[in-house]
Amino acid sequence: MIETPRAQYTQIAETIRARIEEGTYPPGSTLPSEEDFAREFGVTRPTVNRAIGQLRSSGDVKVRRGAGTTVRSLARIHRDSRKRYAARQQGTGAGEVEARELNLESRTEYRQIGRVDTPPAVASVLGIPASESSLLRSRVLYANNEPTQIADSYFPWSKTKDCKALMKPDAGTGGSYGRLAEIGYGPVRFTEDVTGRTPTDSEQRILDLDPTQWVFEIRHVAYTATDLPIEVCIHVMPQHLWSLGYGWEESIVETGK
Amino acid sequence: MIETPRAQYTQIAETIRARIEEGTYPPGSTLPSEEDFAREFGVTRPTVNRAIGQLRSSGDVKVRRGAGTTVRSLARIHRDSRKRYAARQQGTGAGEVEARELNLESRTEYRQIGRVDTPPAVASVLGIPASESSLLRSRVLYANNEPTQIADSYFPWSKTKDCKALMKPDAGTGGSYGRLAEIGYGPVRFTEDVTGRTPTDSEQRILDLDPTQWVFEIRHVAYTATDLPIEVCIHVMPQHLWSLGYGWEESIVETGK
Repeated sequence: MIETPRAQYTQIAETIRARIEEGTYPPGSTLPSEEDFAREFGVTRPTVNRAIGQLRSSGDVKVRRGAGTTVRSLARIHRDSRKRYAARQQGTGAGEVEARELNLESRTEYRQIGRVDTPPAVASVLGIPASESSLLRSRVLYANNEPTQIADSYFPWSKTKDCKALMKPDAGTGGSYGRLAEIGYGPVRFTEDVTGRTPTDSEQRILDLDPTQWVFEIRHVAYTATDLPIEVCIHVMPQHLWSLGYGWEESIVETGK
Repeated sequence: MIETPRAQYTQIAETIRARIEEGTYPPGSTLPSEEDFAREFGVTRPTVNRAIGQLRSSGDVKVRRGAGTTVRSLARIHRDSRKRYAARQQGTGAGEVEARELNLESRTEYRQIGRVDTPPAVASVLGIPASESSLLRSRVLYANNEPTQIADSYFPWSKTKDCKALMKPDAGTGGSYGRLAEIGYGPVRFTEDVTGRTPTDSEQRILDLDPTQWVFEIRHVAYTATDLPIEVCIHVMPQHLWSLGYGWEESIVETGK
């Protein structure tokens, strides 16, 4: 559709972004200085600074104090809601599937595994009183040593407390879902709610984000064959690092004929 | 998890946000002035201004030149990928389903309906040469007179050019999918890819957004029973106005036992 004329700094940001996409400034490389850009584009340094600010918000570049501005090194990772569960069955933790597809080195770091108070919002989805504990498996995932997501999985404590494998970082073949299946709570149906927001201070630190870089918050719920919600997982994922893929069938019946 | 101490303006933003949630400042109401807040919190006006800036980015408030700062009036709208198609069968256009569920007054404004050059990214999904035209149905959706999304649907021109109803804003009962079914291209399978980004200048204008308010870009693809991609719809939706819901079944087979 028709675009209105762009602000000068937006035009400069788009020119630099195009050069990044063409490979003029390759992934991980250091950009020319603001002075250099100001000279090249015939504008003031504050204008260049605003353009760089836009590229920083959108995740195209990283600005490191004293180390200059570098081009993003990770390409966007596609997270397919269905493929990832298929991959679990071959023994790969779902969280690492996507990184491996792109030949990125993936790593999961557990922050906490154990019994916790259930956050009220999680309790209401699990259908348990907020006074009932949960088993929390909280982890940060990395691709090529860059943090790509925080994932906090909550399981009702009463149903999972006797499963020793779930208390360990490596829950074994098929991951935590494999263990749930063994104790009679194998997930067969899933829902995800996706929202977007700015990152908290803690998320900025853990995920190496600017306050202007939005995150996806995915509330993933796994249900057993008897429709019991057995897991709520809250994923927090920098938006510039991910695309989310979903698919479904639906027969559209003709009406009104 | 452990949070680091928050910046003062972030704390003030959170206090104001909590008051909005509690109803101290109801939807659509005008917030106290920055001077009032500065006095109340014992901080400088620039600190309050930064706090308001955060609330503005997150969509909690709107700042109108000369009209002060008002609390957001629309609650977040939940878009359920499955329910919306069921609703089509009862004759409601899918785009208006969610607004109606919340008793919001919904309205669709068509910007353009007709033959256009197919954007290369759309052509590759539709599996047609970029030289082949598409039928574009481009619209803006409103809830209570606030713009909530831009939706641009592309159909292969060669397959849809003879369908008169598709050339009109109101495509009839069951919407465009009803018409596609009648000409033998009824969609039965769907995929959606969700990404997030900052809005373009044009999107800021149409959707009444600040440059710091991110949008969802959903690439929705509809496939026929013979797996022919018959529609690509690009939805652009302010993130603070929406949550996106998906669901699927999957049998997790135990392995490695």
